[in-house]
Amino acid sequence: MTGTGGTGTDRGADTGKNRGTTSPRRVVVDCDPGHDDALALLMAAGHPDVEIAAITTVGGNQTLEKVTRNALAVATVAGLEHAVVAAGCDRPLVADAVITAPRTHGASGLDGPVLPAPTVALDPRHGVDVIIETVMAAEPGTITLVPMGPLTNIATAVRREPAVVGRVAEVVLMGGGYTKGNITPAAEFNIYTDPEAAHVVFAAPWRVTMVGLDLTHQARATEDVVERFRALGTRAGDFVVDMLDFFGPAYRAEQGFPAPPVHDVCALVRAVEPDVVTVRPGHVDVELRGEHTRGMTVTDLLGREGRDLDHLVATELDVDRFWDLVIGAVSRLD
Amino acid sequence: MTGTGGTGTDRGADTGKNRGTTSPRRVVVDCDPGHDDALALLMAAGHPDVEIAAITTVGGNQTLEKVTRNALAVATVAGLEHAVVAAGCDRPLVADAVITAPRTHGASGLDGPVLPAPTVALDPRHGVDVIIETVMAAEPGTITLVPMGPLTNIATAVRREPAVVGRVAEVVLMGGGYTKGNITPAAEFNIYTDPEAAHVVFAAPWRVTMVGLDLTHQARATEDVVERFRALGTRAGDFVVDMLDFFGPAYRAEQGFPAPPVHDVCALVRAVEPDVVTVRPGHVDVELRGEHTRGMTVTDLLGREGRDLDHLVATELDVDRFWDLVIGAVSRLD
Amino acid sequence: MTGTGGTGTDRGADTGKNRGTTSPRRVVVDCDPGHDDALALLMAAGHPDVEIAAITTVGGNQTLEKVTRNALAVATVAGLEHAVVAAGCDRPLVADAVITAPRTHGASGLDGPVLPAPTVALDPRHGVDVIIETVMAAEPGTITLVPMGPLTNIATAVRREPAVVGRVAEVVLMGGGYTKGNITPAAEFNIYTDPEAAHVVFAAPWRVTMVGLDLTHQARATEDVVERFRALGTRAGDFVVDMLDFFGPAYRAEQGFPAPPVHDVCALVRAVEPDVVTVRPGHVDVELRGEHTRGMTVTDLLGREGRDLDHLVATELDVDRFWDLVIGAVSRLD
Amino acid sequence: MTGTGGTGTDRGADTGKNRGTTSPRRVVVDCDPGHDDALALLMAAGHPDVEIAAITTVGGNQTLEKVTRNALAVATVAGLEHAVVAAGCDRPLVADAVITAPRTHGASGLDGPVLPAPTVALDPRHGVDVIIETVMAAEPGTITLVPMGPLTNIATAVRREPAVVGRVAEVVLMGGGYTKGNITPAAEFNIYTDPEAAHVVFAAPWRVTMVGLDLTHQARATEDVVERFRALGTRAGDFVVDMLDFFGPAYRAEQGFPAPPVHDVCALVRAVEPDVVTVRPGHVDVELRGEHTRGMTVTDLLGREGRDLDHLVATELDVDRFWDLVIGAVSRLD
Repeated sequence: MTGTGGTGTDRGADTGKNRGTTSPRRVVVDCDPGHDDALALLMAAGHPDVEIAAITTVGGNQTLEKVTRNALAVATVAGLEHAVVAAGCDRPLVADAVITAPRTHGASGLDGPVLPAPTVALDPRHGVDVIIETVMAAEPGTITLVPMGPLTNIATAVRREPAVVGRVAEVVLMGGGYTKGNITPAAEFNIYTDPEAAHVVFAAPWRVTMVGLDLTHQARATEDVVERFRALGTRAGDFVVDMLDFFGPAYRAEQGFPAPPVHDVCALVRAVEPDVVTVRPGHVDVELRGEHTRGMTVTDLLGREGRDLDHLVATELDVDRFWDLVIGAVSRLD
Repeated sequence: MTGTGGTGTDRGADTGKNRGTTSPRRVVVDCDPGHDDALALLMAAGHPDVEIAAITTVGGNQTLEKVTRNALAVATVAGLEHAVVAAGCDRPLVADAVITAPRTHGASGLDGPVLPAPTVALDPRHGVDVIIETVMAAEPGTITLVPMGPLTNIATAVRREPAVVGRVAEVVLMGGGYTKGNITPAAEFNIYTDPEAAHVVFAAPWRVTMVGLDLTHQARATEDVVERFRALGTRAGDFVVDMLDFFGPAYRAEQGFPAPPVHDVCALVRAVEPDVVTVRPGHVDVELRGEHTRGMTVTDLLGREGRDLDHLVATELDVDRFWDLVIGAVSRLD
Repeated sequence: MTGTGGTGTDRGADTGKNRGTTSPRRVVVDCDPGHDDALALLMAAGHPDVEIAAITTVGGNQTLEKVTRNALAVATVAGLEHAVVAAGCDRPLVADAVITAPRTHGASGLDGPVLPAPTVALDPRHGVDVIIETVMAAEPGTITLVPMGPLTNIATAVRREPAVVGRVAEVVLMGGGYTKGNITPAAEFNIYTDPEAAHVVFAAPWRVTMVGLDLTHQARATEDVVERFRALGTRAGDFVVDMLDFFGPAYRAEQGFPAPPVHDVCALVRAVEPDVVTVRPGHVDVELRGEHTRGMTVTDLLGREGRDLDHLVATELDVDRFWDLVIGAVSRLD
Repeated sequence: MTGTGGTGTDRGADTGKNRGTTSPRRVVVDCDPGHDDALALLMAAGHPDVEIAAITTVGGNQTLEKVTRNALAVATVAGLEHAVVAAGCDRPLVADAVITAPRTHGASGLDGPVLPAPTVALDPRHGVDVIIETVMAAEPGTITLVPMGPLTNIATAVRREPAVVGRVAEVVLMGGGYTKGNITPAAEFNIYTDPEAAHVVFAAPWRVTMVGLDLTHQARATEDVVERFRALGTRAGDFVVDMLDFFGPAYRAEQGFPAPPVHDVCALVRAVEPDVVTVRPGHVDVELRGEHTRGMTVTDLLGREGRDLDHLVATELDVDRFWDLVIGAVSRLD
């Protein structure tokens, strides 16, 4: 039950600009934008402590083609002219076709804002190779992987170059949950879309932090939050508002939520400012065979039957700090 | 989201002795005592509104032989000299052997109190036949089934005499859960022990109320509760205290709970005083095939993909009324 | 690889009338007539070595109601006025509804012949109770169970009275196969219809002989065979001809067979004249969870991974002796 | 039941040297040598109609490291100095570790012969990239993939570059079976080792010919066959004899076969001389979830429930022509 997210009081001096200038967190963001992915990218671009080593895309919220176009457009909004953006897998490891979420994210995968023509170029390499090459070229233990979509790219990288497992600092992913699902009563969308990839990721011998629905449902973009973005009066701020103006009603219609949870942002926040997200040790098995439970992240927080509690499971969000951090980061963009 | 447990204010005049004398709730209790089963039986025996039409036993917390002996002893303590008590199935519908819970309930299945020599006789009929005959002999819609163990007897009755499904008033069972398990991260003991039987019960066209772990974990026999039983100064009160003196530490050691939840009592309370337990409509599928989720009660509270919300799922307990009711009922015993 | 059906040469003096008068084989036939079930019943009625202790019916080829009516009619044709005929389970142990086979057996379950009004009365007891009571009342080791339909009744009997397992002589069932299925590429109809029941039967500690499709496809009622029945010139012979006149074309249309296999008869023949059917030791697991293999009888003939070869698997039919035996038995009826 | 392997009489002029000089069959051999893989490679090297476009290796009969070393050694024996040989995946797509077969192939994966120091160099590219690049660089419809091990590399190539599916001529693989398994009663080793990869391969929209155990068990290297290899008096012939001197007894001890089947050679022969192997149209589903059937190639030869018979299933081997072809090819090597 004890959070392992840090002591809080000690971290005051270590956050914000100061830390940013001395030791930025280098992240590879694997994503399928997607509204919450897009906000996560903007937050990462604006946060002084974050260095985006690469952005890779994966079929998920929409087709690979669409989410890649969206990623380039968001990178353009975020001023990431020199970012490495590469397209990865267009369909799951084993399942025959990707499941998309047009009701939540629209036909484009990012309905709402007008997307600019990208000024960021697509890297010609396969996204999986970009992940591998970025991790293997960096100092061991310096890259954090932050997957925000189906885990196809990550699993494929692990299989193609098993050495990446020992080289990354950690994996902090948005996906799963320990008491609920969304696409089915038992499973969350990212995991459900590619359960076999998720199994590979959770079974590999690295530390995975699961930022799942139990956590992300605490990060809801309420009207108040939207107003704070609107008040920024910046292009990026308006872009976020335009996104939330679509995403909010879509989520309300789809899941009955009064305000939409910005799932993916939570994973990035945990990667960058760990103590904003409390975690517990746990063990996660991905159900591959169930009739009603396929894609469920079966989470053991008690260590039953001698299971190692080898993963971290996000349980509680410091909501105020979360939004301060996200809005603060976006405010640094033009 | 709305509780269907009644309006509360209207029910005041309908509870207690008054109602008991005019229209008792006739229940068939199918159980595997077990400490919480035993307390449920005592509560049923002492409650003025409850008429126990039959008690049937099933292999579960302990072997059929042991739980049957315990049922007879508890019936004796409860003064149920004329109760019909019959032994049912000794093992699950499909699985090869019953799983018992000696760490929670002890080697006898009811460790703690000294059990009296039963003065209640065992009915020679098979428990399943007793269920069928009791239901079929009663006026339609007058018998409530309250299963508190693995659902083997109930499923077998449904298969042997499908007409029982249309004859009972309702089924209010202790089992399952919608956010957690206990014997595994995903599954609760009663359902896990006989998932196929549970499937039969939830799939039959009758109304099932699932009183699962989410609800029962609210019904914890704290020290304060124990003291109230002790203060009764009766044989039955002392029997309960002796049970809880074993059950509490066992539960603490096994599951880390400061005070033990009295699961089965909740089902009986819901059957008798519905508004003490808030419920929501839901649909329950029992997972039979999962590698990590076998025996899970996969619960849909939103009606995804057009599922009928044909069951009721217990969500919230009025804790104060619960204990008043239980202690009050036990206080009426010698 | 060696048949365990006896040496053949030694058995000459032991077959036929002689043996029949001294030690008849007492069988309980559990069936869902069904053309091949019907022929099996006629054969049993006419065979001098067979005493039919009971006939029980189970939902399968058609609904319980229809197959029970058919069983009574066939018993009437067979002159079994004093037979115990009882109706058992109308649906599988776990699955929600019985699968019927109207394309093979017609809307009545026994299309083709005109069925006589039964002169045999239906026993009022539940078929499962008849199985249990017949077995428990007989000398241990004297009753052979011959299931010819879904194994629901047998499994239910095993669960209700586990002692039957140690009391029967053996179980010789028609079902399954070790290289093929019929209703699916992997599964045979009887097992597929109630795989959980089949699991219970194969997992119980008694000797089961699986007479599956590999064997029964050798027992085809060719034109020559039909002519031999026709030549009997008896009511029973004509009844068989009328059945085969429907069953043959139905099978041809459904499965492409030039002549229809009379599956169920093979089980009864094996029970009565074991050396007509060669068997091998094997172990049979019933697949309950496969996506494409549910209801498959996974058969290990090699004892991989230390499995006990605790069942017998029928491999080869002495086709000439088979038909001589069957036609000879039918010829003894009026 | 009709072979689709050609009419035989028409093919005489099209086989042998003549065809070899005009239009060789270009193959990518994906293998895990392994004795039968090795013989297949030798046969391919010696056959005048075969051009080996690439050899890729995959963890299977032994670890990737060992089978890659073996592949290089065999290529050296075969005089394939300029062959592209590249190492692919070292473990299955989803399962955590490769299953090896040391009892059949020895600790080295190719026990028996003394392996020469390789004079063939390992291509530095990943085997999966070699498959993709070879297929994409060739004229459409000119490359035949001949997988002889777990299908990890092939599935990974399909997922990384879906366009390969439309570019290859066909896939002729050794794996599976339609009436039996070997590593389990239901599953064959190659498919069982990586069922998810096999699913991807069989589900992709290309023509797959399954050369499974039903076929390969007809290709047994009897004493007579061994003598014919011995009589060649060549280095390659002696190498084969040394292999069979290990493989034969190993197979006899492991599976009770009097002579070992040379599985993988059959796939290559079917790719090169189709009419030596009779095939039937069929549909193959790979069972991923079964408790007793995982990795089974569930084969529908009848088109039940409207399934497309979109694959070819090898059923019958022309044993004499097979061995003439194989021994003839090996005889062309030094």
